[in-house]
Amino acid sequence: MIVLNGGSSSGKSGIARCLQAVLPDPWLVLGVDMLIQALPASSPTSATGIEFAPDGEIVVGPEFRALEAAWIAGIATMARAGARIILDEAFLGGATSQQRWQHALGELQVLWAGVRCDSAVAAGREIARGDRVVGMAASQAELVHRGVAYDVEVDTTHTEALDCARVIAAHVR
Amino acid sequence: MIVLNGGSSSGKSGIARCLQAVLPDPWLVLGVDMLIQALPASSPTSATGIEFAPDGEIVVGPEFRALEAAWIAGIATMARAGARIILDEAFLGGATSQQRWQHALGELQVLWAGVRCDSAVAAGREIARGDRVVGMAASQAELVHRGVAYDVEVDTTHTEALDCARVIAAHVR
Amino acid sequence: MIVLNGGSSSGKSGIARCLQAVLPDPWLVLGVDMLIQALPASSPTSATGIEFAPDGEIVVGPEFRALEAAWIAGIATMARAGARIILDEAFLGGATSQQRWQHALGELQVLWAGVRCDSAVAAGREIARGDRVVGMAASQAELVHRGVAYDVEVDTTHTEALDCARVIAAHVR
Amino acid sequence: MIVLNGGSSSGKSGIARCLQAVLPDPWLVLGVDMLIQALPASSPTSATGIEFAPDGEIVVGPEFRALEAAWIAGIATMARAGARIILDEAFLGGATSQQRWQHALGELQVLWAGVRCDSAVAAGREIARGDRVVGMAASQAELVHRGVAYDVEVDTTHTEALDCARVIAAHVR
Repeated sequence: MIVLNGGSSSGKSGIARCLQAVLPDPWLVLGVDMLIQALPASSPTSATGIEFAPDGEIVVGPEFRALEAAWIAGIATMARAGARIILDEAFLGGATSQQRWQHALGELQVLWAGVRCDSAVAAGREIARGDRVVGMAASQAELVHRGVAYDVEVDTTHTEALDCARVIAAHVR
Repeated sequence: MIVLNGGSSSGKSGIARCLQAVLPDPWLVLGVDMLIQALPASSPTSATGIEFAPDGEIVVGPEFRALEAAWIAGIATMARAGARIILDEAFLGGATSQQRWQHALGELQVLWAGVRCDSAVAAGREIARGDRVVGMAASQAELVHRGVAYDVEVDTTHTEALDCARVIAAHVR
Repeated sequence: MIVLNGGSSSGKSGIARCLQAVLPDPWLVLGVDMLIQALPASSPTSATGIEFAPDGEIVVGPEFRALEAAWIAGIATMARAGARIILDEAFLGGATSQQRWQHALGELQVLWAGVRCDSAVAAGREIARGDRVVGMAASQAELVHRGVAYDVEVDTTHTEALDCARVIAAHVR
Repeated sequence: MIVLNGGSSSGKSGIARCLQAVLPDPWLVLGVDMLIQALPASSPTSATGIEFAPDGEIVVGPEFRALEAAWIAGIATMARAGARIILDEAFLGGATSQQRWQHALGELQVLWAGVRCDSAVAAGREIARGDRVVGMAASQAELVHRGVAYDVEVDTTHTEALDCARVIAAHVR
């Protein structure tokens, strides 16, 4: 299992797709975006306890936390059942988020990969992507790495996604 | 857990979203579309053993079958961990597909819901949706229900998705 | 040229795609959704004068009106240059919106088609589609038809998009 | 009017969105992707004369050429009517494509901007984007610039979209 952790617009998803292209076996890309997509569409706030503030901050309530815990347990089961999984994540809680995953993944072999990007560059790429909610790139750039331990780190500020993927792939056994 | 089984363009996804709206608790919608989205983008055929024939038929190989088994096991774990899940599925293998899920879900309480739609009507809705691959609606309309046992059945031919969702929701305990 | 006018979730876009499928020549589908997509992504309100209120109402300012006038003139030119165009519109201003198009289209041969849908049914389909902004279907259902004159009218409440398209196509010369 | 010309995955669309963000007035982004989206979905080949070969090459027939001519004339009308337009284009015919636009735009003030990107880098970004059709980036990288004259040129190989947009914006009067 490969866990990619980085802020919004840091380039994680692009690296994930490049990893799928350069690794010899088929890998699944899963991540928190998929969980959010699975949530009820109308009034995500009240019903599920996740809120996207206008400034790009994300506020998560206990209801979302419970669903997320079940989601994490399920992905750990998929990995134990033999699926090769690339996880596309943003550890909004830093070290606490990593511990949540470490606890669920237990004995599984995991490659922890940090995806960094200069805050101003990520903010510019957020504009280029045309996201309606602006500000997440800047607010998450440092936050998601606080206290997180990695096996490999890449930085997309001056390095292409495909080259970052090759660096990470070299660590996959 | 609610399992919605129906052919392409039968209206399952619309019913799933309506169920999220009418049920009092937050429910996650998961399904095979999400699994396909998680697969490698380039050459899905060779790498992962799933092929979309030009006539709308889907050919599934052993490689995809293994990933799917891990996916099913993981979703069962999510349900056991307390997540309320609506499964949006098309049982291309009919009764065999259902058995695969029954085996994984074991003792979990499951509401099996069949979503039917007249084949010609589903084919028309496929055109209205503008899908680039045409023919899946017609080829799957009967196929996915062969030998499958249900707790409740709805038919979208003459009934709106929201009304179908209310019928199904009345069976949720 | 064919102008489809109907409220949000009335089924216009599905009918437009079915018209492309049943008409012998290639037709382009253009519409106000494309114009909105072409606008700046961030702060659409302040910069361009269009606002989507939480209850589904749309408030349009003078800045948007100027861009829309240019857009309408351009589409009239495309039709005059020989392109077959299906227009997918919601006349939020009723008869006033139609006059705006009539003025621009001038001598061009136009088939005005009204697409109606029962307000409650359209609201249900809005939920089934999973749109994040809910309420547009109900607020537009009657509004867009006020004072508008048609060559043909269809109602998607009990009729499939493909059948509605065939009714409209029969009026195309 | 600003015309951005560059190959697939060269970063034109990102620059276009950044231009919308940095320019003081509201600008519309239009382009060939919108025209292709407006075409009939099923059998685009036979009906409309545009074909996407598996190797990423695009073959365009006379039917598509006629629709494109009407499209170009219409966009010229929009610009004449006062709309500020950023055109997101790939001149597959090089100088011939530019002449087609020059002829239609006539006396209008146009800023011709070339968007270059190293062929290998663009091919890598195509993989990172997860496009199902691979090969367009490499085949178009040089092709689209053949014989085309520019007022300003940018290169996204080592420069961010937002910085490229600022260079182009400085030439807008």
